[in-house]
Amino acid sequence: MPSSVPHLKRVTINDVAERAGLSISAVSFALNGRKGVSEETRERVLAIADEMGWRPTSAARSLAGASTSVVGMVLARDPRALGIESFYMRFLFGLEEELSKRGYGLLLQVVPSPEEEIATLDRWRRSRRVDGVVLVDVRDNDPRIRMFEEDSSLPVLVVGDPSVAGGLPNVWTDDATSMRESVRYLAALGHRRIARIAGAEGLAHTRIRDDAYAVEMQELGLEGLMLRTDYTAQAGAAAFRSALTSPEPPTAFVSDNDIMAVAGLTVAMELGLRVPDDVSIIAWDDSVLCEHTFPRLTALSHDVIGFGSHVGRRLFDAIDGRAAGAFLDSTPRLVTRASTGPARSL
Amino acid sequence: MPSSVPHLKRVTINDVAERAGLSISAVSFALNGRKGVSEETRERVLAIADEMGWRPTSAARSLAGASTSVVGMVLARDPRALGIESFYMRFLFGLEEELSKRGYGLLLQVVPSPEEEIATLDRWRRSRRVDGVVLVDVRDNDPRIRMFEEDSSLPVLVVGDPSVAGGLPNVWTDDATSMRESVRYLAALGHRRIARIAGAEGLAHTRIRDDAYAVEMQELGLEGLMLRTDYTAQAGAAAFRSALTSPEPPTAFVSDNDIMAVAGLTVAMELGLRVPDDVSIIAWDDSVLCEHTFPRLTALSHDVIGFGSHVGRRLFDAIDGRAAGAFLDSTPRLVTRASTGPARSL
Repeated sequence: MPSSVPHLKRVTINDVAERAGLSISAVSFALNGRKGVSEETRERVLAIADEMGWRPTSAARSLAGASTSVVGMVLARDPRALGIESFYMRFLFGLEEELSKRGYGLLLQVVPSPEEEIATLDRWRRSRRVDGVVLVDVRDNDPRIRMFEEDSSLPVLVVGDPSVAGGLPNVWTDDATSMRESVRYLAALGHRRIARIAGAEGLAHTRIRDDAYAVEMQELGLEGLMLRTDYTAQAGAAAFRSALTSPEPPTAFVSDNDIMAVAGLTVAMELGLRVPDDVSIIAWDDSVLCEHTFPRLTALSHDVIGFGSHVGRRLFDAIDGRAAGAFLDSTPRLVTRASTGPARSL
Repeated sequence: MPSSVPHLKRVTINDVAERAGLSISAVSFALNGRKGVSEETRERVLAIADEMGWRPTSAARSLAGASTSVVGMVLARDPRALGIESFYMRFLFGLEEELSKRGYGLLLQVVPSPEEEIATLDRWRRSRRVDGVVLVDVRDNDPRIRMFEEDSSLPVLVVGDPSVAGGLPNVWTDDATSMRESVRYLAALGHRRIARIAGAEGLAHTRIRDDAYAVEMQELGLEGLMLRTDYTAQAGAAAFRSALTSPEPPTAFVSDNDIMAVAGLTVAMELGLRVPDDVSIIAWDDSVLCEHTFPRLTALSHDVIGFGSHVGRRLFDAIDGRAAGAFLDSTPRLVTRASTGPARSL
């Protein structure tokens, strides 16, 4: 009756060390993904441990079958090139709110590159350092999605569109619908030249907004102008300035975040243009900031803290082994304020 | 020679369970601070484990003497009442940048109250779940400081003034000097009624700024007006509105963060007041936002990402057992832009 007493046969780190012909310290370093052993040795030790069925949970967890009470999130980002702090801080607070109810902590790791990002996730997956992970900033053909599709041992929740989440559970906002609604709204106000101040290239949600913008503009027979940024105020200001000083400047803008919309307001004022008389501006990701600019910013509004909480709940569903699926969090809705108005007569 | 072979005598979770007369699962839950056992049982198990010298590190760590590769930070905050997202996100990125160099992650836990905050820290301290912790939002007579002063087994780094850090290593910014410099600058521009839009009560750094403002105003013989907020744009707008519609409105403001200064700009414009002709505004915590408002905001500038990194380095010093001390990170310096000018003639 081997299945009833598996814990008696638990493979220890000693067993792995013996088989590998290495010290216990070396094996431990390898299994925990820490420095002190070569990458070659690490791979060999992990292969042996996998083969022997070693489960690298902590002493207490191994014995009690308990969890780590930690979920993980890796961000691959240059901290000097931010611009979306407000979104992520609110998202994190929402996620933490849900974690807090279960006594969970969030292991947050910021790494300099996508390669480091996937290496970190791979270490977490092998070492069972976390009970589950949240994947954000998903790209088209994201190697992280493939990694988790191939090995489902670590629960995962993808923050992103079903089209890029593979078969993994995901929570998403319907950005395409919101983008098309924004363009139609501006067109209804008489705007013919509507520019998109777009976020960082390569991110799936940016591409989805790009596509929705392009399709809607084409359907309406309008002239498009897409300016690429990195989400920072500086890049946003440069994009607004470039568009507004062109021979045929747009009369309306949809900005990919709030901070670039604020920068756009300032650029317009500096150029002596009135908002919304001369230029209309819509901000994505409504925040308190949008309600405290002059004029107040029309924005695509959704509850980012609630979005983070929703992600937390669905991650726990995945951890608890409940049904996976694609969950629409919301369709950001257009909240009109004072920064949008009828196009000026030409 | 007992000291040379302590690992052979390592107390196991089984030993603790046997002494306590409890199941291994129950002991594990108790030691890891998770639900499933009563608080009474937890206290009893922790006492027994302490007495027996049990070290609740993971299997691998116990054997290899390695670390958790995690440092922790607990935030006691209501996520619905933010307003300082930008500061904390930049601080976290700076901290993570330093952690990343060492392959460390940050265990971030948001809890609803200071009581939960200290309970979480206590669990981490007992369970050795993290290698060290960062304490933020320090209050006067903060019980967390006392806890770490009494038991120095878990390395700690206090983000805050030496006057509230007890004997613990701390990194601080000299806010008192910056506040006094700001008041003197406005006074030199001819302002006599200078208001302070103050942050949340109870936080040591808010009190330090309160005191510096009061002292400098008194020394200069000026009329002070202090308005308390919770750091949000809403509260900031209300404070500016209240002050600017009073019978003898201030002609200058020092705001405790950037987002409230932005809200103040908007309130001034709505009331038909010109900035800086009628009202001067200084923002604390310069951010990209301050460079992209109209007019651009004069601000107390310091490198918040660098501050986070500095905190990370000093925490590793503490973890590595290097000399503790009080480390001045910087004195936020006044960067003058377009939101401050001479007081209007009365």
